[in-house]
Amino acid sequence: MKTYATPQSDALYGRAKAVIPGGIFGHLGASVRATGPKFFSHADGARFWDVDGNEYMDYMCAFGPMILGYNHAAVDAAAARQHRLGNTVTLAAPVMVELAERLVERVAAAEWALFGKNGTDSTSLAVMVARAATGRAKIVKVQGCYHGVAPWMRAGQPGHTESDGADILTVPWNDAGAFERLIGEHAGEIAGFISSPYHHPVLADNELPADGYWPRMEALCRANGIVLITDDVRAGFRINLAGSNVAFGYTPDLICFGKAIANGHPLAALVGSEALKQTAQEVFFTGTQFFSSPPMAAAIATIDALETSDAVRRMGDVGRALCDGLVDVARTHGHTLVASGPPTMPYLRLAEVSQETHFAWIDECVKRGAYFLGFHNHFLSAAHTEADVQRTCDIADAAFSALREAAVAA
Amino acid sequence: MKTYATPQSDALYGRAKAVIPGGIFGHLGASVRATGPKFFSHADGARFWDVDGNEYMDYMCAFGPMILGYNHAAVDAAAARQHRLGNTVTLAAPVMVELAERLVERVAAAEWALFGKNGTDSTSLAVMVARAATGRAKIVKVQGCYHGVAPWMRAGQPGHTESDGADILTVPWNDAGAFERLIGEHAGEIAGFISSPYHHPVLADNELPADGYWPRMEALCRANGIVLITDDVRAGFRINLAGSNVAFGYTPDLICFGKAIANGHPLAALVGSEALKQTAQEVFFTGTQFFSSPPMAAAIATIDALETSDAVRRMGDVGRALCDGLVDVARTHGHTLVASGPPTMPYLRLAEVSQETHFAWIDECVKRGAYFLGFHNHFLSAAHTEADVQRTCDIADAAFSALREAAVAA
Repeated sequence: MKTYATPQSDALYGRAKAVIPGGIFGHLGASVRATGPKFFSHADGARFWDVDGNEYMDYMCAFGPMILGYNHAAVDAAAARQHRLGNTVTLAAPVMVELAERLVERVAAAEWALFGKNGTDSTSLAVMVARAATGRAKIVKVQGCYHGVAPWMRAGQPGHTESDGADILTVPWNDAGAFERLIGEHAGEIAGFISSPYHHPVLADNELPADGYWPRMEALCRANGIVLITDDVRAGFRINLAGSNVAFGYTPDLICFGKAIANGHPLAALVGSEALKQTAQEVFFTGTQFFSSPPMAAAIATIDALETSDAVRRMGDVGRALCDGLVDVARTHGHTLVASGPPTMPYLRLAEVSQETHFAWIDECVKRGAYFLGFHNHFLSAAHTEADVQRTCDIADAAFSALREAAVAA
Repeated sequence: MKTYATPQSDALYGRAKAVIPGGIFGHLGASVRATGPKFFSHADGARFWDVDGNEYMDYMCAFGPMILGYNHAAVDAAAARQHRLGNTVTLAAPVMVELAERLVERVAAAEWALFGKNGTDSTSLAVMVARAATGRAKIVKVQGCYHGVAPWMRAGQPGHTESDGADILTVPWNDAGAFERLIGEHAGEIAGFISSPYHHPVLADNELPADGYWPRMEALCRANGIVLITDDVRAGFRINLAGSNVAFGYTPDLICFGKAIANGHPLAALVGSEALKQTAQEVFFTGTQFFSSPPMAAAIATIDALETSDAVRRMGDVGRALCDGLVDVARTHGHTLVASGPPTMPYLRLAEVSQETHFAWIDECVKRGAYFLGFHNHFLSAAHTEADVQRTCDIADAAFSALREAAVAA
């Protein structure tokens, strides 16, 4: 391989630190590595290029939004057409109604939709609707889950107060018994249960729901008047276009969407049941930029393209091939690679080695052009191909060899 | 005038109600009137057209974002250029750094910047930074203020719990004495004071700061280690490009921007002082869509265009001409029109009549093509002209005549 280096990224990172706390903030800041790229120059299909000209097959897909490939012609054309009519205007755009109709038609549990910009908007609104509908305050979430950065879900982190977390309770993942006990301890106090459809924590294997878990959780919610909220922000549109819950055999009252809903155009949505429609109308929820119309046109085009290209099945096939291929490559090097979660969103962990070795292997893959992340699930897109998988397996093979050479040299 | 009607808006509103709680939600829902337009078909410059083909001079400017005119060529071209490179990608875009540098250069109190999508993102982050910096929980805000829809600022509204408001205290506007007393009652407990630079409540005349108010508030914050947060989301870029605080003679620690920052492209920002930079780095703040790069390019182009066109002064001149003209027209009809707030953001109230008559006059203006809102401040843009003002005054004149005719007929 040619010598890998990122001097332009590093120089720009230096400039960034002067004017942005941390230089790069949020999840993009958390994923900055000493040796990795820090800024992109351009992106296309399943690839991006950093500011040093290095090319990467992208298995993070912008942390989810990119589901059809970067710069998808039909999606971007739909957004541009709407943009020419008007972006953020004093009135609502007709396309808002068309998108709501499309989501109601497309998503099994949706009888209405509201729009925001980020997952945090959807999850915060969902919690407010649950509280308004029940007249109760407590929200139950799963330990180690992530539902955004609003104060109500940031217990113990900087900037968080005791009162922010006063009404938040937690249960372990896949533990309906713990939820049932909690209901008993807080009889008549629990407004809602919020959870992703499967468990996708950071720095840990991802876990699918156990057999019977979701039907039992749904029954407990129904029996106790608890609003069942699915946070499908991360997994939405990569498991089932009708809602990830459909794949796991249950029906939530509210579903939060974000990330992939418009292939990178800024949009989020909350959809819900007819029973909660009146309450959703009574909770005041707004944002200046919520009504920007091009992302709504992009969302319709994204759903159209996902449907007509059978994208979920194809992403699953490519994702399975990737996971199987990487596990095989690891084995030939005497390593055990664990791929967890759905094949369209695999979490990769090099087992039986130190976390340092795991991250070193990830870094060796990145500098050879396969962009992985050591502490987070990955994302497949409809733009990834079998040829990408083959090339990625070759890169993983070379990365393992480099690890061994480094160990021998040390 | 030709017969004014909005059958297409009304029909689409009917469809909307089937799939969106309330049909149109948030502030756009709150501003829907029985006789007014409900959906736009297209927009250009200072005008929009509704789905029935009616044309309006727009004095709401999308509730603030539109500051240079709809579909501004230079801004939209800058966004499109960045879009072709990549929208929301796995890495940050160089334009994020360029925008942070531009804000630090442009905004007097800014030594760093962080980005979000809506005003609520900025205000919620500001409150978290204030709490993290001080290790205190209480936030003081002004009665009747609006800082977004996050639970922490929604006391008493549906979906809100007691714990959400547990650490929020309020003082009346322009009352530094009340703030001083509150500091005494909560010694060492107050993390921050958040306020808009002038008071712009709904359904009430807007109020500028009294002489000496802001210097005294700033001194009280400094003396008591309280973080001073200016919510410039609504007024930002319409009073002073260096921050509205500059016009009122004080220096906040944090300034929240949103709305007009990118002329309708979805973006918000928090800027702050060097002293709070490390704390801002420690507060985890993110959103998938925060890193969409075209709005950042749009923001740079917006600031460029505002600077080079001397837009703030020109908007002020046109706004003063509008307010003076409308007041004169009202007087010729025996009415007293009160225009309050800065001339670029006038709040209009027809005094000495019932609220019903006030709203009837607004409606008569709207159906003649001057889009006003009865309960909210208005916004001027750099695309509004003296000719628009003249035409608007003629419309206002006809609207007063129509009011009198309706009263005679009743």
